Amino acid sequence: MSLIVVGTMAFDAIETPFGKSGQIIGGSATYVAYAASNFVQPVNQISVIGYDFPKEELEALQARGVQLDGVEIKQDEKSFFWAGKYHMDMNTRDTLDTQLNVLAGFNPKVPDSYQGSEFLMLGNLMPSLQLSVIRQMKTRPKLIVMDTMNFWMDSAMQDLEIVLKEVDVLMVNDSEARQLSGQFSLVKAAKEILKMGPRFLVIKKGEHGALLFHEKDVFFAPALPLEEVFDPTGAGDTFAGGFVGHLAATRDISFNNMKTAIIKGSALASFCVEKFGTTRMKEISAEQIDDRIQQFVNLVNFEIKLAE
Amino acid sequence: MSLIVVGTMAFDAIETPFGKSGQIIGGSATYVAYAASNFVQPVNQISVIGYDFPKEELEALQARGVQLDGVEIKQDEKSFFWAGKYHMDMNTRDTLDTQLNVLAGFNPKVPDSYQGSEFLMLGNLMPSLQLSVIRQMKTRPKLIVMDTMNFWMDSAMQDLEIVLKEVDVLMVNDSEARQLSGQFSLVKAAKEILKMGPRFLVIKKGEHGALLFHEKDVFFAPALPLEEVFDPTGAGDTFAGGFVGHLAATRDISFNNMKTAIIKGSALASFCVEKFGTTRMKEISAEQIDDRIQQFVNLVNFEIKLAE
Repeated sequence: MSLIVVGTMAFDAIETPFGKSGQIIGGSATYVAYAASNFVQPVNQISVIGYDFPKEELEALQARGVQLDGVEIKQDEKSFFWAGKYHMDMNTRDTLDTQLNVLAGFNPKVPDSYQGSEFLMLGNLMPSLQLSVIRQMKTRPKLIVMDTMNFWMDSAMQDLEIVLKEVDVLMVNDSEARQLSGQFSLVKAAKEILKMGPRFLVIKKGEHGALLFHEKDVFFAPALPLEEVFDPTGAGDTFAGGFVGHLAATRDISFNNMKTAIIKGSALASFCVEKFGTTRMKEISAEQIDDRIQQFVNLVNFEIKLAE
Repeated sequence: MSLIVVGTMAFDAIETPFGKSGQIIGGSATYVAYAASNFVQPVNQISVIGYDFPKEELEALQARGVQLDGVEIKQDEKSFFWAGKYHMDMNTRDTLDTQLNVLAGFNPKVPDSYQGSEFLMLGNLMPSLQLSVIRQMKTRPKLIVMDTMNFWMDSAMQDLEIVLKEVDVLMVNDSEARQLSGQFSLVKAAKEILKMGPRFLVIKKGEHGALLFHEKDVFFAPALPLEEVFDPTGAGDTFAGGFVGHLAATRDISFNNMKTAIIKGSALASFCVEKFGTTRMKEISAEQIDDRIQQFVNLVNFEIKLAE
């Protein structure tokens, strides 16, 4: 039951049709840690922050079993900052500002205390840094899950191809799957991507759910139909955190258990989008998570009798 | 086990990124009849065609138990014609040409032999004509299902509102649900639309599946992930035909049976898009349909244990 999470811890400023967040806490590793810690503790965090990252936010993570030995604090630099704007169709967004700050010289280190972790979640980050973390592990983790994005396909495709050969599960969204494979059909895209290294592929389709591909098998989980998506920031990372958190907690990496992991990730993501940033993730209880998983069961459950 | 289908029987000319169809058979009632006749016969068809509609096509429908007493043949006019073009994203299309021809003066008549039918499928048509068919029924059918489109919301909203009060199930796509309700969130849109008359609402999301709303319940069925969507024309009508065909065959209009009906409609629609026009619908066997329904079961089936 040990999980390493690599990614950003950052400040975000978000605009949606419903309001502006002001400067709030964000970052891929932050969302992954909040989600995963519902199912598994400790979460061994690897990231980098500046002098300006609030101490209370670190304490809030520690209180959830998030280990911070691998989080470097650069005392003379500011934390990574991203500002973005969503329109009514929350599936796309405009980046308004990106300030790399501490991220520019980030060189992730795996602390000795994290060695032997069985699960590794590589949040979206420069592929060479994701690879560096894999290479630092003295024993290869039981399962390596990787998130990435179109930016790295444009700017660091060679490195990305190397990392892909080292991971077990790749998570991308539908347009990234199309870009990575050169195929428009997601079924064809999955076939191509599964030749590039990963044995499992998760294609995230935002409000349209997620697909899991493995060999000839495919599984689909919808997103919960919500009255309002208030802020989709972090939904993908929360999904990833719930997914890998469930797998790490159960130590079962079968296709069947990955289905469950996808439903649990989807349930957590459905909370994440209800308020700005990590607000909702800090509030929810185990009972609320179970209630929502039951809603997923009700949403897709049907009985059918085939003709004899 | 008696079903009336109202809608168009027409010629289409379709362009997709994969080719051009030339002039082929289309029309909402054609697709509905092909789909429904897999599950229920007879299908009591109400439509209008011109002198140019091929006799073999009428015979092919009759061979599947489609009654044509309600299909008016105008000997001095041409059949309705539609030409359209799809791009790589098959969720939207451009209309290249529309020739109403026989449709301009269409006045549907319910033959005496159709009276007493328990199920009525109102395919996409001018709302006043849909209403006329309802009013001609001496006994109100057990279930009235209605398809419509944005064009009627723009041009005949008052009539549409009157028909909505008379039907049990409304089928629209996601953008139409938003237009009809003035709500962007599909959950909020469904709440509004269910106040307008229908007790059940199906929102079709094309490759992203379909949602069924009824009171506080919601059910979601994905579309089957396909290697290639060759031609989406008629997929919505085929879905509707499978849906109402299953309900008419089982005479069970419970929410649970509607879930099954949606899966069966989705399975048939997944065949429809594999070739131009009705080609694939003419080929498939009961075994192939069952195989595909089993693929839906596999696609969404998962087991989950909630924490105690």
